Amino acid sequence: MNRTIGILGGTGPEGTGLARRLAAAGEHIVIGSRDAQRAAEFARLMRDRLGSAAPIEGAENPAALARCDILVLTVPFAGQAALLKQLKPLWKPGQIVIDTTVPLAAAVGGAPSRMLGVWQGSAAEQTRDLVPSTVAVAAAFHNLSAELLAQDGPVDCDILVCSDDEAAKKVAMELAAKIPGARPVNGGKLENARIAESLTALLIGLNVRYKVRTAGIRFTGLPL
Amino acid sequence: MNRTIGILGGTGPEGTGLARRLAAAGEHIVIGSRDAQRAAEFARLMRDRLGSAAPIEGAENPAALARCDILVLTVPFAGQAALLKQLKPLWKPGQIVIDTTVPLAAAVGGAPSRMLGVWQGSAAEQTRDLVPSTVAVAAAFHNLSAELLAQDGPVDCDILVCSDDEAAKKVAMELAAKIPGARPVNGGKLENARIAESLTALLIGLNVRYKVRTAGIRFTGLPL
Repeated sequence: MNRTIGILGGTGPEGTGLARRLAAAGEHIVIGSRDAQRAAEFARLMRDRLGSAAPIEGAENPAALARCDILVLTVPFAGQAALLKQLKPLWKPGQIVIDTTVPLAAAVGGAPSRMLGVWQGSAAEQTRDLVPSTVAVAAAFHNLSAELLAQDGPVDCDILVCSDDEAAKKVAMELAAKIPGARPVNGGKLENARIAESLTALLIGLNVRYKVRTAGIRFTGLPL
Repeated sequence: MNRTIGILGGTGPEGTGLARRLAAAGEHIVIGSRDAQRAAEFARLMRDRLGSAAPIEGAENPAALARCDILVLTVPFAGQAALLKQLKPLWKPGQIVIDTTVPLAAAVGGAPSRMLGVWQGSAAEQTRDLVPSTVAVAAAFHNLSAELLAQDGPVDCDILVCSDDEAAKKVAMELAAKIPGARPVNGGKLENARIAESLTALLIGLNVRYKVRTAGIRFTGLPL
């Protein structure tokens, strides 16, 4: 599959980590940013780390959207709606967006271990409201911290994937499986993203209480 | 510690399972029920299984409350508030209640993989509203399914314990550690019970999607 994956808002720690991990697995990555130069610089830094032939480029977010089949949304929640409104006219039918955002209260100056209530139920469902109905939405990667992504070895974490669209779910699970150690878990409908998202707040609290930085989650008892 | 543990609403599958596991670990258990005879019958069945000397008795819920230092609340959510209102005048200062209830939509005829919104934020916080302020509330055991409890071997599941009261949290973590295989995890404040409770809905959905009955959860990256 000759697909291209755009990481919207991809110069933050989560976006950078996902870009590097997926590029290391051979995926063709376009890092999107508000600033084309910043995106190009991050892409260059990653090629320095992964090898000059690594398939990573940089682009402004709209250009990344135009060029990619699959978009991964990694902006902080405070910027999610504004970016999606800006991009709304640019989507093409059949594109897939994988939402990773978490509505932490930190977005409005609150605690990173508390959640905001999103009217739609979750950040992912807000995304579904803000893209054309011809674009499929999945939610994934919430519980894989930027710290774990930044490490070199395998991660010790499952990745819940929630979607109402079977094709989008399949793609998100394929990408999750490309991160060494990660295990994609079928999280059901997109509405369940609210649980996956709130798990992130719990993991942030566990990091604080246990003085670590890489708390993760595994499901047990599943035939995986 | 010569403590006695009452399991309020303890003749359901979760209560029965917890009673048996904790009695097997040497705790003195009083199974509470609306019906004293039913409670006595369940206690007898458990003594048959664990040995006639097993420290398990049965009592009506109010009698169990009067006799015990620690109460574990295992009624279905649909009956939680009514039971707590009935018991309200009977609590003594210093008692501890460990809430295990989960506000599944099934309580009002909805799906068991969906949650009800509880005004206070969680079933555990509703419990805090319905007991005297001299009674400490912890939330625990939500994610340990009755199926896992009913098995004989060790469980493969962590137990999140949430409380604003350090003594109550300590007791709940001690009890969690008595179930072979279980690992108590400090879930922080009582308000985080909303996340632990919603995890139950997620695990029920995983059981359905993966055609199993004992999905559980483990946290990774913690120094435990």
